[in-house]
Amino acid sequence: MADIGTLLSEIVGVEHVLAGDAISEDYAHDEALSRDPVKPAYVVRPETAEQVARILKAASDQGVSVTARGSGSGLSGASVPLANGVLISFERMNAILEIDTENHVAVVQPGVTLQELDAKTAEHGLVYTVYPGELSASLGGNVGTNAGGMRAVKYGVTRHNVLGLEAALPTGELIRTGGKYVKASTGYDLTQLIIGSEGTLALVTEAVLKLHPRLPHQGTVLAPFTDLDEVARAVPKVVGSGLGPLIVEYIDGLTMGAITYSSQLKLGIPADVRDTSHAYLVVMLENRTQDRLGEDIEELGELLGGLGAKDVYVLDGPSARKLIDAREKAFFTAKAAGADDIIDTVIPRASLPEFMARTREIAQENNTFVIGCGHAGDGNVHLAVLQKDPEVRARVLRALFEAGIGLGGAISGEHGIGRKHVQSFVELTDPTTVDLMRRIKTAFDPAGILNPGVLF
Amino acid sequence: MADIGTLLSEIVGVEHVLAGDAISEDYAHDEALSRDPVKPAYVVRPETAEQVARILKAASDQGVSVTARGSGSGLSGASVPLANGVLISFERMNAILEIDTENHVAVVQPGVTLQELDAKTAEHGLVYTVYPGELSASLGGNVGTNAGGMRAVKYGVTRHNVLGLEAALPTGELIRTGGKYVKASTGYDLTQLIIGSEGTLALVTEAVLKLHPRLPHQGTVLAPFTDLDEVARAVPKVVGSGLGPLIVEYIDGLTMGAITYSSQLKLGIPADVRDTSHAYLVVMLENRTQDRLGEDIEELGELLGGLGAKDVYVLDGPSARKLIDAREKAFFTAKAAGADDIIDTVIPRASLPEFMARTREIAQENNTFVIGCGHAGDGNVHLAVLQKDPEVRARVLRALFEAGIGLGGAISGEHGIGRKHVQSFVELTDPTTVDLMRRIKTAFDPAGILNPGVLF
Repeated sequence: MADIGTLLSEIVGVEHVLAGDAISEDYAHDEALSRDPVKPAYVVRPETAEQVARILKAASDQGVSVTARGSGSGLSGASVPLANGVLISFERMNAILEIDTENHVAVVQPGVTLQELDAKTAEHGLVYTVYPGELSASLGGNVGTNAGGMRAVKYGVTRHNVLGLEAALPTGELIRTGGKYVKASTGYDLTQLIIGSEGTLALVTEAVLKLHPRLPHQGTVLAPFTDLDEVARAVPKVVGSGLGPLIVEYIDGLTMGAITYSSQLKLGIPADVRDTSHAYLVVMLENRTQDRLGEDIEELGELLGGLGAKDVYVLDGPSARKLIDAREKAFFTAKAAGADDIIDTVIPRASLPEFMARTREIAQENNTFVIGCGHAGDGNVHLAVLQKDPEVRARVLRALFEAGIGLGGAISGEHGIGRKHVQSFVELTDPTTVDLMRRIKTAFDPAGILNPGVLF
Repeated sequence: MADIGTLLSEIVGVEHVLAGDAISEDYAHDEALSRDPVKPAYVVRPETAEQVARILKAASDQGVSVTARGSGSGLSGASVPLANGVLISFERMNAILEIDTENHVAVVQPGVTLQELDAKTAEHGLVYTVYPGELSASLGGNVGTNAGGMRAVKYGVTRHNVLGLEAALPTGELIRTGGKYVKASTGYDLTQLIIGSEGTLALVTEAVLKLHPRLPHQGTVLAPFTDLDEVARAVPKVVGSGLGPLIVEYIDGLTMGAITYSSQLKLGIPADVRDTSHAYLVVMLENRTQDRLGEDIEELGELLGGLGAKDVYVLDGPSARKLIDAREKAFFTAKAAGADDIIDTVIPRASLPEFMARTREIAQENNTFVIGCGHAGDGNVHLAVLQKDPEVRARVLRALFEAGIGLGGAISGEHGIGRKHVQSFVELTDPTTVDLMRRIKTAFDPAGILNPGVLF
């Protein structure tokens, strides 16, 4: 049996295969909290789709595990390799192949970052609307986890904005799915099946992304409420208003304190309002014209006032940017504040008050600190769990997942299952469904080389 | 081995199992043209999801084929049964289970029609935005074919508006996928895999549908152009304008003549304009306020004028409704005019002029009449083919499919492959992809009972 290291060198050239001490710490982890880093046997850096397919064929033949890595900004451990496995880093496949202004489509390699794509689409007055917190994230990673973010309430998540893929199968072939069109009824939708599969079915070597016109005018409103229940009750009204909000975020009082402090953000909220406000709603609107934006913001303000907001602050551009930036960095704020885990349970948005009440109970019962913010318009709650004892923490997480599933939700809205939540996923999901997913996995990956230990 | 008829009677009661002459002609066909009707051995009418699951288990055990039928309005033969098989008719599973105004979700059984759902959502100021031509179509059938329609350019097709499913597996279990939330990264997206699978993977017993606020104001503009190339060039500009059109349809001159004649529609277009206009663009806008709608229509008119429209007609409410109705009935007009086949190839929308040029060549080369209309904003071209000779017709269809695929498109945008286009699908699709789809099929349906002969 040929040595996998030798085979990899034949495929990509010896200078693009790393082993032993040549593998930097960067390749050993993602941003998942409370996970030990793992260095793989080899890091390989392909340049073409054909090379990726050949790597997978060689790994299948040799029974060696393969993990894909984009920017390593994931939160679930799905890009952490196995110690005896191969890590494919897509850092060299980082070209924006096309911005098609007629079809409103971008074609990108998996290593392109959101930031690079955003800069390029802006030149054409277009935008790729998926904005998860971390703009250094790669498009390949976004497809793997079905990344979401704040703008999902208006534009959907990755799943709704990827029109087609080129992907390498574990069996060594390249396939193309979908294309530069928004609809097809021509066989099973392999695009959607691969999106969110966390590197367990096929590796994306090219993605066709849907672009939208970039609307020039945006406005942000911040509304403090007495408590989270009030915020949660306001959310369906805001989403259903017809105003088409771009962002509908909730931030609890503690998290708001932490992120405004850490980003030195002055919002001009009087102390008496701040002291009695335990939850905030942030709503951003966008429009083609400044006039309409102004009208909409006024209407939104009246609506929020009627729904119990203690006041309504229309933020100026720099303050709004700072607040949204700070909200996007809430994960890092939580991390810096000593959070031991982050979860992102999704529930029907109207069940937010009930879920948050249950969260408070679980936190109290387990003497654990749980704070958060989230995509309220989508019912996607991001909670930071501060609890050093791994056993207690595991119990808290499990109870939170059970509460979410009990309300008709799911474990993760956008971070994924990865290696972190496998046990909960397998135990809390109907066995028939898990078995069916395993059979689908085998249909793609008969040798079981792609990211073993992720999902199942 | 027990007789399948006896088993079916045990499951649903003898009065809901039809055989022999008790099976009416209605169950033997859908709306696909040039297909012979086929009566199944049994028609079975379950009332519950559990009954559907038990029927599938019995059929798997006995090796009997099963075809699902909603309203029978499909255009691809996917609900036409096999002569020795079982047809499951969902006519008794026709309840709207819930209109959830907080989460903006409807929960329906598969036999509910679009018309019934539209009436019910209207009571709450909400709307299910998928409007394929035929409102007697069932939601189950819509999910099976991934139905589209005119409003897809703004709101997407069925795939983008179904949040979750309950489905019966051929192996006899019920599964639930997704839920009342718009995003999840929690295992493979089985919802999306089942949508558009044309009854070959699992049978939908319940669907969770996304609803939108129903915007009160709509306006329709009709613009005649010299030829289809001009229309096709205008489309990306209209879609990219930021006006967010609800409908962007093209209608060729002959089809416009036919549908206005057959529906006795007077649009007030002067004879000299009509005689020199070989293609029309129909754009519908919607808005929350009448003022904004008026402004947008004015802007649209100016835009179209600059793009070569010979004139711009803002239709009054009744005329607009009549035109849209007539366009929706274009299939029936084509059928009445003697069309022998209808196809709905999808291509990147900017490739419309090239595809239409190739269509003209193919029509001329084969002495065949090909006319049409279509969802221009989506690049989804509906063509009626008038050619009695089945061999020549097959050659024309194949050439049209090849032309579409050659431009980066797919055989069907919304009608599906069904039984009609199986050979073209299998022969024109990369064998690796077809093999992978077959393995997925086997993962769901090891006994191969669900709709054999559809897709593959």
